Amino acid sequence: MSKTLISKTLATPALARFTAAAADRNITRASYFVVAVGVLMMVVLTVDPAYQSMHRWVDTLLWACLAFFGCEWLVRLRRAVLTQVGFSYALSFRGLIDAVAVIAVPLAFVGGADVKSAWLLGIVWILKVVPGIPGLRQLRRVLVVERGPLLSVLVIFLMVLFLASVAVYFLEHEAQPVAFASVPAALWWAVATLTTTGYGDVVPITPLGRLVAAFVMISGLGVFGLWTGILATGFAAETRRDNFLKTWESVSRVPFFAALGPAAIADVTHMLRTMDLPARTMIIRKGQVGDCMYFIAAGEVEVDLPGKKVRLGAGAFFGEMALLGNNLRSANITTTEVSKLLVLDLVDFRLLMARHPELAATIDLEAKRRAQENR
Amino acid sequence: MSKTLISKTLATPALARFTAAAADRNITRASYFVVAVGVLMMVVLTVDPAYQSMHRWVDTLLWACLAFFGCEWLVRLRRAVLTQVGFSYALSFRGLIDAVAVIAVPLAFVGGADVKSAWLLGIVWILKVVPGIPGLRQLRRVLVVERGPLLSVLVIFLMVLFLASVAVYFLEHEAQPVAFASVPAALWWAVATLTTTGYGDVVPITPLGRLVAAFVMISGLGVFGLWTGILATGFAAETRRDNFLKTWESVSRVPFFAALGPAAIADVTHMLRTMDLPARTMIIRKGQVGDCMYFIAAGEVEVDLPGKKVRLGAGAFFGEMALLGNNLRSANITTTEVSKLLVLDLVDFRLLMARHPELAATIDLEAKRRAQENR
Amino acid sequence: MSKTLISKTLATPALARFTAAAADRNITRASYFVVAVGVLMMVVLTVDPAYQSMHRWVDTLLWACLAFFGCEWLVRLRRAVLTQVGFSYALSFRGLIDAVAVIAVPLAFVGGADVKSAWLLGIVWILKVVPGIPGLRQLRRVLVVERGPLLSVLVIFLMVLFLASVAVYFLEHEAQPVAFASVPAALWWAVATLTTTGYGDVVPITPLGRLVAAFVMISGLGVFGLWTGILATGFAAETRRDNFLKTWESVSRVPFFAALGPAAIADVTHMLRTMDLPARTMIIRKGQVGDCMYFIAAGEVEVDLPGKKVRLGAGAFFGEMALLGNNLRSANITTTEVSKLLVLDLVDFRLLMARHPELAATIDLEAKRRAQENR
Amino acid sequence: MSKTLISKTLATPALARFTAAAADRNITRASYFVVAVGVLMMVVLTVDPAYQSMHRWVDTLLWACLAFFGCEWLVRLRRAVLTQVGFSYALSFRGLIDAVAVIAVPLAFVGGADVKSAWLLGIVWILKVVPGIPGLRQLRRVLVVERGPLLSVLVIFLMVLFLASVAVYFLEHEAQPVAFASVPAALWWAVATLTTTGYGDVVPITPLGRLVAAFVMISGLGVFGLWTGILATGFAAETRRDNFLKTWESVSRVPFFAALGPAAIADVTHMLRTMDLPARTMIIRKGQVGDCMYFIAAGEVEVDLPGKKVRLGAGAFFGEMALLGNNLRSANITTTEVSKLLVLDLVDFRLLMARHPELAATIDLEAKRRAQENR
Repeated sequence: MSKTLISKTLATPALARFTAAAADRNITRASYFVVAVGVLMMVVLTVDPAYQSMHRWVDTLLWACLAFFGCEWLVRLRRAVLTQVGFSYALSFRGLIDAVAVIAVPLAFVGGADVKSAWLLGIVWILKVVPGIPGLRQLRRVLVVERGPLLSVLVIFLMVLFLASVAVYFLEHEAQPVAFASVPAALWWAVATLTTTGYGDVVPITPLGRLVAAFVMISGLGVFGLWTGILATGFAAETRRDNFLKTWESVSRVPFFAALGPAAIADVTHMLRTMDLPARTMIIRKGQVGDCMYFIAAGEVEVDLPGKKVRLGAGAFFGEMALLGNNLRSANITTTEVSKLLVLDLVDFRLLMARHPELAATIDLEAKRRAQENR
Repeated sequence: MSKTLISKTLATPALARFTAAAADRNITRASYFVVAVGVLMMVVLTVDPAYQSMHRWVDTLLWACLAFFGCEWLVRLRRAVLTQVGFSYALSFRGLIDAVAVIAVPLAFVGGADVKSAWLLGIVWILKVVPGIPGLRQLRRVLVVERGPLLSVLVIFLMVLFLASVAVYFLEHEAQPVAFASVPAALWWAVATLTTTGYGDVVPITPLGRLVAAFVMISGLGVFGLWTGILATGFAAETRRDNFLKTWESVSRVPFFAALGPAAIADVTHMLRTMDLPARTMIIRKGQVGDCMYFIAAGEVEVDLPGKKVRLGAGAFFGEMALLGNNLRSANITTTEVSKLLVLDLVDFRLLMARHPELAATIDLEAKRRAQENR
Repeated sequence: MSKTLISKTLATPALARFTAAAADRNITRASYFVVAVGVLMMVVLTVDPAYQSMHRWVDTLLWACLAFFGCEWLVRLRRAVLTQVGFSYALSFRGLIDAVAVIAVPLAFVGGADVKSAWLLGIVWILKVVPGIPGLRQLRRVLVVERGPLLSVLVIFLMVLFLASVAVYFLEHEAQPVAFASVPAALWWAVATLTTTGYGDVVPITPLGRLVAAFVMISGLGVFGLWTGILATGFAAETRRDNFLKTWESVSRVPFFAALGPAAIADVTHMLRTMDLPARTMIIRKGQVGDCMYFIAAGEVEVDLPGKKVRLGAGAFFGEMALLGNNLRSANITTTEVSKLLVLDLVDFRLLMARHPELAATIDLEAKRRAQENR
Repeated sequence: MSKTLISKTLATPALARFTAAAADRNITRASYFVVAVGVLMMVVLTVDPAYQSMHRWVDTLLWACLAFFGCEWLVRLRRAVLTQVGFSYALSFRGLIDAVAVIAVPLAFVGGADVKSAWLLGIVWILKVVPGIPGLRQLRRVLVVERGPLLSVLVIFLMVLFLASVAVYFLEHEAQPVAFASVPAALWWAVATLTTTGYGDVVPITPLGRLVAAFVMISGLGVFGLWTGILATGFAAETRRDNFLKTWESVSRVPFFAALGPAAIADVTHMLRTMDLPARTMIIRKGQVGDCMYFIAAGEVEVDLPGKKVRLGAGAFFGEMALLGNNLRSANITTTEVSKLLVLDLVDFRLLMARHPELAATIDLEAKRRAQENR
């Protein structure tokens, strides 16, 4: 396709909507689907009997995937250029992945690779999923904050690896001249042992070699334990932080809490969890056991009372009755639009009531008013 | 059995009691026992020499198990219908499991499967244990709350899996055309390596293939560490929450604590642990070293003093003497009925005494009164 | 040896001292040494060339170990009888282990076992180490407190095991009639896979069997992660509790802290760590970097100042200068007798100073007085 | 080289600078590089085809590495002697490693070892990396503090190992007289199984042997879980302590915090993280999303405002605007010299503002002043 042709194509009204949605959820989902199809086809490609019986389908789908990614890239590039961030998109991780996903396979064809090998390069498509991984930012922060100790464990890992390899090469070389032919071969054994994978293709047979191997295995457990301990520690801190950040803003926008002053808001934020819900989602089902109450940070819900329907908007709360005595939910409650709720767990409800009696009074009053109204 | 026959059978007084107990502990225990027997027989069924020498026993027991589950299902269905929740039981997880447990094997016979294969379907019986697993709710909540990061790790796991498979297929295909015949074969190698299982049936032999394998093994450790870290974090939070919920209600019902006001109750709740005991259970044995005291939330205990027996009811406390100086328990104490106790550990006893001196005074006074009385 | 002979032997003055020390540290240490020798000899016993060349030594040592354990048991039994706890010792875990260690091997000889097999029963000697494992009580408490979730994970483990075994037996039986001959054989495969051990002696080869295997491996990681998470959570709680209990008593006996009142003592206890030291141990070495100070809970230390030696007894503190400006220790400090010290870390020192300014003033004053005196 | 020659060489001005830098960063980095080269050459040495084609290069580089380490050792020794700590350096871990690194290979040559074996001793060079491992001190402290429980797990590990070995030797010896020839052979199997390595070279085949093996595998998971749990617990505590120590000093030197008094400083210290930056490093990039603010503990930064450049020195703060409403950074900020910054995260910023309103007022005032100035 020549550049002029692409410009023309993009100018047609049919593609205008596609352009608008390019950075959108729908496109992203479609993109994941295409990645899945593409990877599946790549897998089928290498299974000879399957490929021979349906090679037309496979080829067509692979080309279709490539075409989709090509369009996607161009659309995104155009958008980025229009909003004057073209250069920064093209060099971002996402932009580079998008580019490589399009260019890799054709380049291999041009370079003279055989058909199968060329298509296998399409495995880079799988990297398109990376920006959408939930909680990836959180994981990355843990790795950054704990990089000191993690690096330290890695260095210890490598040191044990090399020391053990040379030792076992020394001890086993004569007994098994083929399996332990060189230090790289011993390294292969050492890495499989230290990670407790233990293929068993190369195994020491001399008593001293086995003694070293036992030490390596136990070191493997130790390294692993340290690794996990560090990650667990980092993760616990990060989880609290992440929740605080997500919740803080919503909390300070709810008038009910806003009156408390910053110290209490910080305190309350640690007790709440945000929940984003699409429209027409049932939050509370009548007759269920309730163990939390909700504050509406944004959006609206509908309470399905007998005989009438009540709507509650941003700033209101509901579900408190199940926490104040009667455990069963007394009405269905559904969102009417996209809503952001703050969830207060039973445990934290009690702590909150204990620490901020003025809130307790407000909730209690409202609960009584509602109970009377519904009678 | 025709439907009329079943109705008749259920109407007989002998089965009436069975009906009443259907949702009961005894039935549940019997059910576990039958599951164990059934699974054992299934195992024996496949061991040819064992089966040939006692096939009558095995067959009889398997049919008996099936009959038991059939009865159990019908009884439960009838109960549910009588209490007007028939539909909701039939479609609940428990109801579906109960149904499948009964229907699966006969269906296989009808469908023409051979005897062994048909009975092996009885392995679904093992799912009947699921609703009774202790702490399952807790585990499920951890998985729900941490689903974001866990999913994130899973996606990373799958990405490494596919990237490594294609890379190793590429690198090893020529050297080992049979073992790495296709990407699915390479995936098999990758999953065994990334989980550090390492069967050793398929192993890379080229230097580059081994380098990729080493990265996969180390990624395996990393994935594992993240996984564990996330679960550990979630579990720590859940354990505290679960204990708080179980303890709160009991605490607020003990007059000793009820006078403290909500803030202090929330504080105290974090220090206590509930303990449910059947009747006639010895709680404290004379002469043992004591490191906790008890509050009676419900039920009654009997203190076996020299010369007389004293009974303490709900709201009373005991075992405080061992925490106030003399470390050895001075009398046997036994429950007289099903009781719920609140346990206060030595550590928390001291914290409680420090934070709530009025409680300390009450306990001290009572301890002195008792010591005088027993002299 | 007849019973009379033993009584006589025990009556001789030479053995009187042995009797006295039976429950003692020295005996315990000797006992560990004898266990080590015994186990080593058992190992040598099974290595044919080694045994043939030195069978006299091995036999003699094994008999000597047995004799030692016999004497130890008799001495302990006698002690227990004299202090009127004979029955309770004989039935305690320790008493039973002591008895089995003595009786097992002779019984095997009497029962007609061959020499090697009989002596191999001596492996039960290794259980004599159990009561002396440091922190075993702590581990046991974690297992007790977390038994609910741990059991829950175990049940899930077993369920996955059985479901996977039957599934793989079903899928692989025809392809590998020998390896997957029965469900027990499949169970063997499943346990090696679910624990990620992966021997590779039995491996699924059909595509569906491998898919099930992949699920089992990933479940293995999950089970493992849950397991570790639960233990980590329980362990964190237990460690804090254990330290608090060990430290509390010592803290309240130090006059310096005793004046603070119970609330502050509980607070301070969380910051201190106890340290038990034998006599003549150097605690502080001149010129080292110091990051903690010490309070003497019991015992005495000697400060080696230039020109004179100062002794500090229970209730005194030292090492505070390194925390108040100059980082290097200015004198050697050694215990003169068995001492119990309370260690206050630099971090907690600062927290303590911040929260209890009156303590800060006392320490500051004393430090200045000492600095002046030493000038 | 004779001793006189070395003295002369060291006296030349060219080497004087080398001497001065010996304990320096540059030397240390060079040293790591040389270690890497040396180890790489050792690996190549054992790969026959590679070594034959370039043995001159390999030999030369190995001798060069040895010479480098020799010089380094001598320079360090001389420095230590000049500063009168010669003896203590020579016997320190670092000094001994330096000495062994130089002496090992020549000694092997003298002792008549063949060339390859002698050079392989050079693997001790890798230990030179140990003193530079980041966070090693932290890891060591965790191991020291948690040595009680860790030892306890190790003893349990060894006990299971020996009990399982003898049991499996007993059960499998007849079925597999070669693989389970002796208890040491069974120990080899047990260690590979208990660490879940599972080579598969020795595998039980009798039903009872497999049952024991299953228990060993599950124990392996348990041991591993305990191990990890202990390390995770210890690590969490150590991380907090380490950060506090690193941050405390810097915090108390910033006038902004110094006015708060010790209690508040201890509180604030837990919220800050130190960051050491070289000169000319960009800290904040215009247009990025900001989630933290910075206090300058030492050094200087340059704010690149439109039209002018403002320099901020020790005690100043910046980046607060992104936390007070507008999320995007409004200017590039770069260090002009080596600087130490204190980072205050968004979460902790809010907590700090809530707990110390006077700080909030100061920051707010300054932010307004700056906003006005830049308009």
